[in-house]
Amino acid sequence: MNETIELLNSHRSIRKFKGERLGQATIEELVRAGQAAATSSFLQACTVIQVEDPDKRAQLAECAGGQAYVADAAAFLVFCADMKRHQLCCEMHHAEMQSGFTEQFITATADCALFAQNVAIAAESLGLGIVYIGGLRNRIDRVAELLKLPDLVYPVFGLCLGYPDQDPEVKPRLPLDVVLKKDGYDDSGDLERIRAYDDNVREYYRTRTGGNKEMSWSEQISGMLIKEARPHMLAFLQRQGFLKR
Amino acid sequence: MNETIELLNSHRSIRKFKGERLGQATIEELVRAGQAAATSSFLQACTVIQVEDPDKRAQLAECAGGQAYVADAAAFLVFCADMKRHQLCCEMHHAEMQSGFTEQFITATADCALFAQNVAIAAESLGLGIVYIGGLRNRIDRVAELLKLPDLVYPVFGLCLGYPDQDPEVKPRLPLDVVLKKDGYDDSGDLERIRAYDDNVREYYRTRTGGNKEMSWSEQISGMLIKEARPHMLAFLQRQGFLKR
Repeated sequence: MNETIELLNSHRSIRKFKGERLGQATIEELVRAGQAAATSSFLQACTVIQVEDPDKRAQLAECAGGQAYVADAAAFLVFCADMKRHQLCCEMHHAEMQSGFTEQFITATADCALFAQNVAIAAESLGLGIVYIGGLRNRIDRVAELLKLPDLVYPVFGLCLGYPDQDPEVKPRLPLDVVLKKDGYDDSGDLERIRAYDDNVREYYRTRTGGNKEMSWSEQISGMLIKEARPHMLAFLQRQGFLKR
Repeated sequence: MNETIELLNSHRSIRKFKGERLGQATIEELVRAGQAAATSSFLQACTVIQVEDPDKRAQLAECAGGQAYVADAAAFLVFCADMKRHQLCCEMHHAEMQSGFTEQFITATADCALFAQNVAIAAESLGLGIVYIGGLRNRIDRVAELLKLPDLVYPVFGLCLGYPDQDPEVKPRLPLDVVLKKDGYDDSGDLERIRAYDDNVREYYRTRTGGNKEMSWSEQISGMLIKEARPHMLAFLQRQGFLKR
């Protein structure tokens, strides 16, 4: 295993950061590394909003359900799926853009995630810690307003970055044979594999919380999925010009 | 700049591979590195299908619009957004899963992209070349059938891996100030920046093709976006149980 793979395998989310800031040159280095990721059909559909304004940070932390590290992290980036610049390209060439396709939503969303993961890895390679903030989608309309996002742009997730002030364990992942299949989908046997994994996850939480939390993976997932999942999302995205057809 | 960031910045798609195969241990090492990526709410919503069967490979190459390297690459992986295993978790706990939310589609799709990008970087760190195959979505119904994908699973993209038998240049990316904004979205000035970038891209294609192709970025984008984008996508995804509300 080489150093890069060791780095990838050592990822854990960091939610407590030292006060030390990041220089703008570092942030730009990270974003350039993000741009180097593959992009679907060369669309380059990701725009990053670096939020420095403390008041905006505080409001975004609220939007994310009160995650204080959104306000406290050395840097906070919001990755936006952006088809507006493609509309600009069409205008430059007097062409009428066909927008609102689900396919475009997939490519723009995937572009952001590939981009962001490069930023995350580059950051971790510099000794920084990161945590993705999907919680921004709790109040996605308010986030879009705060960041002045126009039509054809939506915030996929945020990313906190900073020097770690904690050293959590790596969280155990599903057994390999649950996530890797050969030649076709076949989940026979996965039930038993998930039961074995449940024991690992229960043990992980027990150790980490000194016995205060003992929850298996399947319990956690089923507890989450009996509830509605951000039911405002489709209407919001359609208002922004996505997922209309 | 450290070695990891250099590796990220040196990415280019590889579409011509040497015959040398990859051992199963290597593929498993790459997939484990993929699993180590962040996952939204611990959902772990990515399943990888490793396609070894030569007939299936050939048919997938056809689905992708005749991309021969899908058949020829040392390995071909299909990254599937998978909420079926969460249904299994709900069944284990006699809970009724609320599915079909757009939010779940976003998290599962993003999970796959984060996972895949870790696989891609791990592969490149081992001297392998990669290319993402979004073209699978041309004939996504056929791909789902070939790979026996059940409800609540969809193929986001494929990934070819192998030892590079070509050495293409890194493709120039948009200027940093087009993709990185501070505190809010503001694209004033982007038109001029894109015009300058257009010259870079035209030069890149001219050099790469010995003068046979001279196309700017904005021309390429506008030429693509005047057409419908895989208009079958929404109906397919809804049939699979996604994007219903």
